[in-house]
Amino acid sequence: VRSREAILNAARELLTRDGPAAVTHIKVAEHAGTGRATVYRHWPRSEQLLADAMAAVPMPFFNTPTGPVRQWIYNELTALGRELNRRDVRAVATTLANSALWDAEMANRRERFATTLADRVAKALAAASDAGEVTLRTSARSAAALAIGPIYYRSTIESGTVDDDLIATIVEALGTWHDRSGGHA
Amino acid sequence: VRSREAILNAARELLTRDGPAAVTHIKVAEHAGTGRATVYRHWPRSEQLLADAMAAVPMPFFNTPTGPVRQWIYNELTALGRELNRRDVRAVATTLANSALWDAEMANRRERFATTLADRVAKALAAASDAGEVTLRTSARSAAALAIGPIYYRSTIESGTVDDDLIATIVEALGTWHDRSGGHA
Repeated sequence: VRSREAILNAARELLTRDGPAAVTHIKVAEHAGTGRATVYRHWPRSEQLLADAMAAVPMPFFNTPTGPVRQWIYNELTALGRELNRRDVRAVATTLANSALWDAEMANRRERFATTLADRVAKALAAASDAGEVTLRTSARSAAALAIGPIYYRSTIESGTVDDDLIATIVEALGTWHDRSGGHA
Repeated sequence: VRSREAILNAARELLTRDGPAAVTHIKVAEHAGTGRATVYRHWPRSEQLLADAMAAVPMPFFNTPTGPVRQWIYNELTALGRELNRRDVRAVATTLANSALWDAEMANRRERFATTLADRVAKALAAASDAGEVTLRTSARSAAALAIGPIYYRSTIESGTVDDDLIATIVEALGTWHDRSGGHA
């Protein structure tokens, strides 16, 4: 188990430092200080090793809504922006989007990730709508893309920091929030 | 010139079919039917060849605003969604976002791309605001992320089609459009 952890850590460090092409059996074994045979035994394919190393980066966003939802979404988007400001998280997110085009295992992970986030965002907004906290401007199927898309684009394409202005703009775009929700100050 | 074009086409085909790791001097030379020395002479580094192959995919979005701007943005976002539905465009966009983390040349291209799009979107929205067509809900620095981010996320993470619902949601999120603009039907 310890060598497995050491190998996964080494793979993630190489991914972050040098990119996905650096996650080879040879380099990971060297970096982890283990034998190559050990790496091959656990992960016959280096793509699988890369995928498992990436899975260690947690994606705990939009998990447990607490009211008021407006403030909660604001906080979750802030946390997401902070995570995507980390080099290793950007490396994982963009490697996933890229390698999923050619690797079925990565495509499955991307699919699960996107579906989970979309379900969570839709559920939280539906609850806020039912409670009379918001009159939604988005459909459930557009909500995740509208909420997460700008933060993902700002981080991975604009290579910029997710600021309060962008988050506030997103929160207001999702719907008309009624005053008793208390704002997000 | 002709061998240069053939090499770039071969590189782009390999990128689209097998991913960025397939864009090596050896494979590109084989696929283009040229000698390896020719490929090395034009592109000593394979990263440079990949970057040049990607540059051949045009990004003509948000270029020349025509009024009413609401309809124009709707059309531009539709065109962007259609482009990102193409496998080669997704390959280029996600390879750029990924490889820019480790390659300065790619980071420059990503930067130019993001800055150009952000300037164009901001300029068009400012013109519409000045003309009284819209009361903006976004700042100039958030507009591009809000407009393009959801489409990019839908295409590259949700791996879905950009539909009219998403585009209409984005257009309405940008601001309050005044009726004389004629809607986007």
